[in-house]
Amino acid sequence: MATRVGILTGGGDCPGLNAVIRAVTRRSFDRGWDVLAVREGWRGLVEGIVQPLERRDVSGILPRGGTILGTTRTNPYRLESGVERVLATFERERLDALVAIGGEDTLGVAARLHAEHGFPVVGVPKTIDNDLSGTDYTFGFDTAVTIATEAIDRLHTTAESHNRVMVVEVMGRHAGWIAVHSGIAGGADVILIPEQLVTVEEACRGLEKRHEGGKDFSIVVVSEGYELTYESGERRLVAGEARATDQFGHVALGGVGDALGREIEERTGFETRVTVLGHVQRGGTPTPRDRVLATRYGLKAADLVHEGRFGRMAALHGDELVDVSLEDATAELKTVPPEWYAVAQAFSG
Amino acid sequence: MATRVGILTGGGDCPGLNAVIRAVTRRSFDRGWDVLAVREGWRGLVEGIVQPLERRDVSGILPRGGTILGTTRTNPYRLESGVERVLATFERERLDALVAIGGEDTLGVAARLHAEHGFPVVGVPKTIDNDLSGTDYTFGFDTAVTIATEAIDRLHTTAESHNRVMVVEVMGRHAGWIAVHSGIAGGADVILIPEQLVTVEEACRGLEKRHEGGKDFSIVVVSEGYELTYESGERRLVAGEARATDQFGHVALGGVGDALGREIEERTGFETRVTVLGHVQRGGTPTPRDRVLATRYGLKAADLVHEGRFGRMAALHGDELVDVSLEDATAELKTVPPEWYAVAQAFSG
Amino acid sequence: MATRVGILTGGGDCPGLNAVIRAVTRRSFDRGWDVLAVREGWRGLVEGIVQPLERRDVSGILPRGGTILGTTRTNPYRLESGVERVLATFERERLDALVAIGGEDTLGVAARLHAEHGFPVVGVPKTIDNDLSGTDYTFGFDTAVTIATEAIDRLHTTAESHNRVMVVEVMGRHAGWIAVHSGIAGGADVILIPEQLVTVEEACRGLEKRHEGGKDFSIVVVSEGYELTYESGERRLVAGEARATDQFGHVALGGVGDALGREIEERTGFETRVTVLGHVQRGGTPTPRDRVLATRYGLKAADLVHEGRFGRMAALHGDELVDVSLEDATAELKTVPPEWYAVAQAFSG
Amino acid sequence: MATRVGILTGGGDCPGLNAVIRAVTRRSFDRGWDVLAVREGWRGLVEGIVQPLERRDVSGILPRGGTILGTTRTNPYRLESGVERVLATFERERLDALVAIGGEDTLGVAARLHAEHGFPVVGVPKTIDNDLSGTDYTFGFDTAVTIATEAIDRLHTTAESHNRVMVVEVMGRHAGWIAVHSGIAGGADVILIPEQLVTVEEACRGLEKRHEGGKDFSIVVVSEGYELTYESGERRLVAGEARATDQFGHVALGGVGDALGREIEERTGFETRVTVLGHVQRGGTPTPRDRVLATRYGLKAADLVHEGRFGRMAALHGDELVDVSLEDATAELKTVPPEWYAVAQAFSG
Repeated sequence: MATRVGILTGGGDCPGLNAVIRAVTRRSFDRGWDVLAVREGWRGLVEGIVQPLERRDVSGILPRGGTILGTTRTNPYRLESGVERVLATFERERLDALVAIGGEDTLGVAARLHAEHGFPVVGVPKTIDNDLSGTDYTFGFDTAVTIATEAIDRLHTTAESHNRVMVVEVMGRHAGWIAVHSGIAGGADVILIPEQLVTVEEACRGLEKRHEGGKDFSIVVVSEGYELTYESGERRLVAGEARATDQFGHVALGGVGDALGREIEERTGFETRVTVLGHVQRGGTPTPRDRVLATRYGLKAADLVHEGRFGRMAALHGDELVDVSLEDATAELKTVPPEWYAVAQAFSG
Repeated sequence: MATRVGILTGGGDCPGLNAVIRAVTRRSFDRGWDVLAVREGWRGLVEGIVQPLERRDVSGILPRGGTILGTTRTNPYRLESGVERVLATFERERLDALVAIGGEDTLGVAARLHAEHGFPVVGVPKTIDNDLSGTDYTFGFDTAVTIATEAIDRLHTTAESHNRVMVVEVMGRHAGWIAVHSGIAGGADVILIPEQLVTVEEACRGLEKRHEGGKDFSIVVVSEGYELTYESGERRLVAGEARATDQFGHVALGGVGDALGREIEERTGFETRVTVLGHVQRGGTPTPRDRVLATRYGLKAADLVHEGRFGRMAALHGDELVDVSLEDATAELKTVPPEWYAVAQAFSG
Repeated sequence: MATRVGILTGGGDCPGLNAVIRAVTRRSFDRGWDVLAVREGWRGLVEGIVQPLERRDVSGILPRGGTILGTTRTNPYRLESGVERVLATFERERLDALVAIGGEDTLGVAARLHAEHGFPVVGVPKTIDNDLSGTDYTFGFDTAVTIATEAIDRLHTTAESHNRVMVVEVMGRHAGWIAVHSGIAGGADVILIPEQLVTVEEACRGLEKRHEGGKDFSIVVVSEGYELTYESGERRLVAGEARATDQFGHVALGGVGDALGREIEERTGFETRVTVLGHVQRGGTPTPRDRVLATRYGLKAADLVHEGRFGRMAALHGDELVDVSLEDATAELKTVPPEWYAVAQAFSG
Repeated sequence: MATRVGILTGGGDCPGLNAVIRAVTRRSFDRGWDVLAVREGWRGLVEGIVQPLERRDVSGILPRGGTILGTTRTNPYRLESGVERVLATFERERLDALVAIGGEDTLGVAARLHAEHGFPVVGVPKTIDNDLSGTDYTFGFDTAVTIATEAIDRLHTTAESHNRVMVVEVMGRHAGWIAVHSGIAGGADVILIPEQLVTVEEACRGLEKRHEGGKDFSIVVVSEGYELTYESGERRLVAGEARATDQFGHVALGGVGDALGREIEERTGFETRVTVLGHVQRGGTPTPRDRVLATRYGLKAADLVHEGRFGRMAALHGDELVDVSLEDATAELKTVPPEWYAVAQAFSG
């Protein structure tokens, strides 16, 4: 009887998911396997929503954003007898292996299922934030950087024409990868990320110095996960959905970009405008680089299944696809090292 | 002595301004005229910042966003002896004519200067909102619609993958042109604009009906100038920079998009995310259509100067460039008529 | 019994076809009609390949290029008993009306069927060349112009860096609309179209004059339908698929672009490179403007069916959707008038 | 006295050149050095065209295609006393170091000047073909792949609507990197590159098999440097500018794409269309990835000058910027290894 491989996508959506699904499926078919779509992440295994995938289901999906499998943040470990139901579905569907595509949370479940139950799972890393350790780059990241850079390019002309400071808030809850890459690519003048302690006062002084030097506009790129930090030592996290107040007592709804913009305008007197890119960064067609990377991840995952290397995650090291332990890969975040931030800094001011 | 023509851009920046400047300048040079750059809108005439434009200054600017002349919202009628200073600069620089490129405010000043002082001015309409009467389309509008539609396209995949409602706030303070065009082009399910009374309750019922019909995601496009309207008759304007509270008492910072998103989530229970496109819509390279249109406007303006038709504005009627009275053109806003909204409605639900 | 409406697409594909199909179908469903897909143009009626369209068939197709119905250039009037078979299929499928989307050829068949057999057909004009009389603009044209302009933008940097002449051949077999619009939008230095007699010698002199004036690169845009014309009076058409020789005896495969490039290089000594854009211009997602226009055409066509206005074609006049006689619309080509070419000329040299 | 660093760009232009120039210049200024623009590659040193670069010269050039320095293929070793003149200019301008940005030819000159004359030169690799050994990726390559993939995406809809084979000829004279990456990203069905022996007959059989399997369209991507190879053992190179005949005796002007298209159509009977992307692939704004990579190359080159590591070339190994010997880097081409081609092959048919 043919090997039966399940495939699921979990967590936030990410350009390139469909390219991974297509690659896993096509290579599996080439091996004579059956492929089963597990719907909406771990929820599909908890609730038993599993359907056969046909060749035509993955035809034409390479350039499409989103995921044809659907996705949720369901975590079986947080549900009453969630794990039991996952195992039961797996058995009932006579699955031989599972390919789980997801971030820290989704792969954390995979790692634990493998460690505790010998669950035959292989992981593919997915995060547009690029903050998964164990792999150099994740697919979707290049697309997010591209969308952010296009926005910065567009804002440049507005900044120049109006002598304004433009603040652009980009994704990155725990790591500043998108901010650093899009900031370098877009020629940003100030880049603020969670990993580097730059106070609001320093940032403002940088802008003032630049304007004294003859420039009358500036672009500031800030990660959503940057904490507003003050010389007094005070720090304020105004992350994504959070609600907080800035030093001037304003309610800072809408994230760190809005709060930072208000600070800059009040402290420097420069007219400031804020753009929050939001979900636009994670939707739509992947860049060619992300399509190629996602395809390679998918082929590698199918090969890991073939080799029975369960508990492993496909990973990019340099320009090679390798595999690493799921446990190691989800153990800690990969943050922006100082040498990368230094590249960004070379053009500040 | 050669005819001396001044040129200025006023108000918010807009893709295509440089294309107009280039066309006016090139045609003027072909006629043997001198062209003078008036810096930063009416401020340049108030403060006497006027410089000769050379052929090389307008070389290569066709595809560039922003304006090489700079722009402000300075209104000489609101400044102490502002009008006198405008007239003085005009005389001192021995200008024979002025081409003023701007929206309602900039052209309103032009109309009044012409009416009260016989000021030899010709207008070119500029608004990405497309709400100037007297002309069918303004340059920059197509670019704004294109950027908004690309964002909607990207959000579609996120909406589908997560079964979410995505709210997209687009520009349009007084008229819903960008919302209607990008909503039709992007296949939005609900479009909310200032011109059409749709209550928050109606919009939510529309979404619920759609989801009952089997769709589990929706796209809502809303003009920044839409007033949150309730069946009780209450109306709340949460425009751009405003701060207000919604019916649930939340502070609605960040505009109507955020307020609407919160209402939808609380009333329908559908997971909802909000994207506010902001200034990205008005920056960057113009679409080919806007470049062609801006070029035609610029050539027409130079021709109006040549013919001495002052107090007139270049305008697009059908596919023809004509001229209309500056006074008429700035008298009232051009809002979205019901037949256009009906096109958008044909695909709702 | 429900009204049954057939829909077909004929001729070359064109961005926006799916948007028309979606609009016709959605409005028909709103009226309670059945819609039937006629496959691959008139061939579907000749061979009886007709299938019901469901709501889900047209879901998500708005941004997609191509046509879900398929298309061919089949002409029933050129087939043995072709017309009889069309009428037989129409009757057997109990169709009440047909919406035919196509260019000169497809609509010519529709016009003749209506005139000779009272065939209840309504037309929607389709040509990326924009050369159908009776309508101001056709959908697909804006997309073609956009793709051509993006290419010209890219070629500008190569031309400048290398001091080269870049020749770009764009679509337009009988009319120069794409060349004129993309040439204006891309800032081309020479634009050659079928409608304007410009000899090869004149074009070369124009380039030489420009280079004497200090510019050391140039962009030349040429319609595929431009005839190489010489001062001697000789004319050579090197259209699309044709094979011919230029004045120097070289075989000029690959169209007028290659032939022209060789002439320029040999006559002026300027290093010259040629780009032939080809089918890239007619594929892929439509621009927002084309999506809106195609949607309006589709709604109008459904309305014409509703009103029983057969033998008519939906048309854009100014900014209004109206209807014109199919016969008139297909009677002659709409070529580029001198005033449009003059806009392009204003920036030459 | 301040260190004086010259900078030149040689060979074909490439997106990202200006980003390198900006990075070298900005870092040099930060070190207090003077930077001199050597115009048009080695020609600038041969003819003594050298000018100081100012901060404002490199402001705003990051997103621009082309090179502000101009470029030629001048090789001093092929000119009468060319090398002497290079050395003389270098001395007269009191230069302390040179940063040479170029491909095999430009860097080959640099390597030889360093080896033979101890010329203090540092190299930055530049080729959109990505075929320089010593570095994993070159800037400009990602942009070329992106442009090629966008074209393939567009051609897909035309192929599907018309049941056609679309042949796309992409750059790559000696190596198939662009074909392989854009082919994978665009979902091509057949990919033909110089490194892999695939006969015309095999390619046609692949297409026929695919069509027998139910698909009625196909995309073929071919490197310009692919040789038409036949089962008889015959091989025909129809590179870029070459003129040759195919097996059917047709003159195959316009490159391998046209020749291959004709073969496919005649052998399989499938309607086939050819697109030759040409110089569009090397022009215009670089992708964000190329801007980041080019910036890092520029900073590294300035650091190599600072450290006096002459005769070295900046190189990307994995995700690190390192330096390698100029001599080694230009010794041989980096071709596509079988494992990369295998990724492409996984989706054929």
